[in-house]
Amino acid sequence: MRVSTRGEVDSFIVMDVMTRAAELEAEGRKILHMEVGQPGTPAPAKARKALTAALEADSLGYSLTVGMPELREGIARLYDRWYGIDLDPERVLVTSGSSAGFLLSFASLFDAGDKVGIGAPGYPSYLQILKAMDLEPVVLETAEAHRYQPAPGDIAGKGLDGLLVASPGNPSGTMLDRSALTELIGAAHDEGTAFISDEIYHGLHYEERAVSALEVTDDCYVINSFSKYFSMTGWRVGWMVVPEDHVRRVERLAQHMFICAPAASQVVARAALESMDELEENRAVYARNRKLLLEGLPRAGFRRIAPPDGGFYIYADVSDLTTDSRVFAREILEEAGVAVTPGLDFDKGRGLGTLRFSYAASTQDIEEAMLRLKAFMEQRVTVDS
Amino acid sequence: MRVSTRGEVDSFIVMDVMTRAAELEAEGRKILHMEVGQPGTPAPAKARKALTAALEADSLGYSLTVGMPELREGIARLYDRWYGIDLDPERVLVTSGSSAGFLLSFASLFDAGDKVGIGAPGYPSYLQILKAMDLEPVVLETAEAHRYQPAPGDIAGKGLDGLLVASPGNPSGTMLDRSALTELIGAAHDEGTAFISDEIYHGLHYEERAVSALEVTDDCYVINSFSKYFSMTGWRVGWMVVPEDHVRRVERLAQHMFICAPAASQVVARAALESMDELEENRAVYARNRKLLLEGLPRAGFRRIAPPDGGFYIYADVSDLTTDSRVFAREILEEAGVAVTPGLDFDKGRGLGTLRFSYAASTQDIEEAMLRLKAFMEQRVTVDS
Repeated sequence: MRVSTRGEVDSFIVMDVMTRAAELEAEGRKILHMEVGQPGTPAPAKARKALTAALEADSLGYSLTVGMPELREGIARLYDRWYGIDLDPERVLVTSGSSAGFLLSFASLFDAGDKVGIGAPGYPSYLQILKAMDLEPVVLETAEAHRYQPAPGDIAGKGLDGLLVASPGNPSGTMLDRSALTELIGAAHDEGTAFISDEIYHGLHYEERAVSALEVTDDCYVINSFSKYFSMTGWRVGWMVVPEDHVRRVERLAQHMFICAPAASQVVARAALESMDELEENRAVYARNRKLLLEGLPRAGFRRIAPPDGGFYIYADVSDLTTDSRVFAREILEEAGVAVTPGLDFDKGRGLGTLRFSYAASTQDIEEAMLRLKAFMEQRVTVDS
Repeated sequence: MRVSTRGEVDSFIVMDVMTRAAELEAEGRKILHMEVGQPGTPAPAKARKALTAALEADSLGYSLTVGMPELREGIARLYDRWYGIDLDPERVLVTSGSSAGFLLSFASLFDAGDKVGIGAPGYPSYLQILKAMDLEPVVLETAEAHRYQPAPGDIAGKGLDGLLVASPGNPSGTMLDRSALTELIGAAHDEGTAFISDEIYHGLHYEERAVSALEVTDDCYVINSFSKYFSMTGWRVGWMVVPEDHVRRVERLAQHMFICAPAASQVVARAALESMDELEENRAVYARNRKLLLEGLPRAGFRRIAPPDGGFYIYADVSDLTTDSRVFAREILEEAGVAVTPGLDFDKGRGLGTLRFSYAASTQDIEEAMLRLKAFMEQRVTVDS
């Protein structure tokens, strides 16, 4: 049977790590998971209760394509709470996770062959979704000096139709501060480049809060999700904010491409917005974990790490320790029983020399992982020398 | 801000009906809904209970991209139960509704500019999703003599890269019997045309059961959903069956484009597969409703209807009654308080002369709708003559 060219996308390299970790667990070993990009916590208790009630009272059929009105209003209020922005709920479109947000943004903004800039290191699916939508990903190798984020100089003269930026970034955890974001958006506008801001790690900061692109301009697409801060990965619900004159356009695309986001997930999301106490407790756990990593990783020998502004990842340059992060990650898994993600998933150019550590696990697991990593590295250095 | 050409898709025309119906309801009128494409029933009771339990016990994070193993196995067993087919669960991919099934099929099989045949009348989103994926929809005007389904002669020499067929069809409710389906698949194979079978109305038949494309060939994509027979529209969960050597390919695309189908919906779907008693009761209601329509519509003056083999729609040729189905639908709504779908959503060529009646509502509503339609038509004929 025939196949397409655009369907020839890559698998996640971390899948090999996860498969091997599962095998080791099946053999009875305890593996500590620092490879996963999701909270260990479920959706907030109050939010789960809201669904239990709705399961009795409601048929949970299709919602409006743009989302349940009370959820859109709740999301709009979040912009006031987080950023002091007065956002019209009509500009909010509830989506089936940020995944749907990407597909809708790309369909709304770009035609086949258009060029869209993405930073490396970056979320691997950006590149693959662009490819699946017959677009041309233009990978911008970002500089450590720019916190591994794109800078105006990276896009100048590239003729990009679009630019997709994540702050905090994955895998880097680094953020664009207000002035860097303002300059980048200005440069994109000057080039006629549509600006898409992936803000799915907003809410998860440990010093300064993240700045939304909407604080800088209304002339952009913002993509967000209930997966990370709201601890709802498996529910597949997120949202977009688009310019006022794009709402009907994206709504029409979503009618056909998705119909609506899952109704049950929307009920949970609505109540999650009112569960800030529990979510802030989750964040306090990440803050503790992050502190453990910032102390523990250098002590184990991982000294070159990106500024860990937000999210729940730390990205480490290990090019002084290995020439192949896949081999190194495998070694760490086999010897220390700690699963980590090789950087090649995020950066085809430099990823052989990097690793991503997630600290979304429990503090107890992170503590044990730090002990194991330290012991592993001591023994490794000894063997090597 | 820039926009794409492919993003210029059409809205559903029925939305105007639904908006006006909501206005009339806000004014206190009782509107009977024969325009909606979803069951009035919720997910089966046992299935909702399964989720209530899972909400206590499970974090409901990301599932495997291909779906929860026990759900894939349950779906494979359904093929034995419904068609006597021994299906390898490894060929089943759980998706975020059939919507995701279409996006994944198109990305896996076709490149920008490829031609994909779809029958008219047909589900309006086919055309719009193809457009959003930068593909070229080739609309095949089907013949009443072929039950409004594509026939080998419709595709011969058209150079189609793909053919998407729904049996039972929406809006027609008509099915391809085994010999018609076998001939059509044979013709597609001869032309080098990939065959995609939309089987989302399977399970909802009232005389002969529907035939799956998998009974004819393994060399096809099958798309199905828990929305219709399983009464789970708002849960956004469905599945695909693809050739063995396409599984990894579609899995990779789904990893990036969707990550996974909603975990909660998968829990509900798994238990819905074990809720056949309740689902067969739902079907008995549709069977009664269908009978009421088959008696009531001709009595009211709607005599030219497509063979109503399955699903929960009846498609009527009203070209003897109106020159514009949109005006006629509006008139029926205003005068009789019955919401129906103008055919233009399904067939741009002939849809000004057709209407779709859904019988997914309660029997009581259908009974009242038949009385109202009869009275409306009597009065209309009197006025006109």
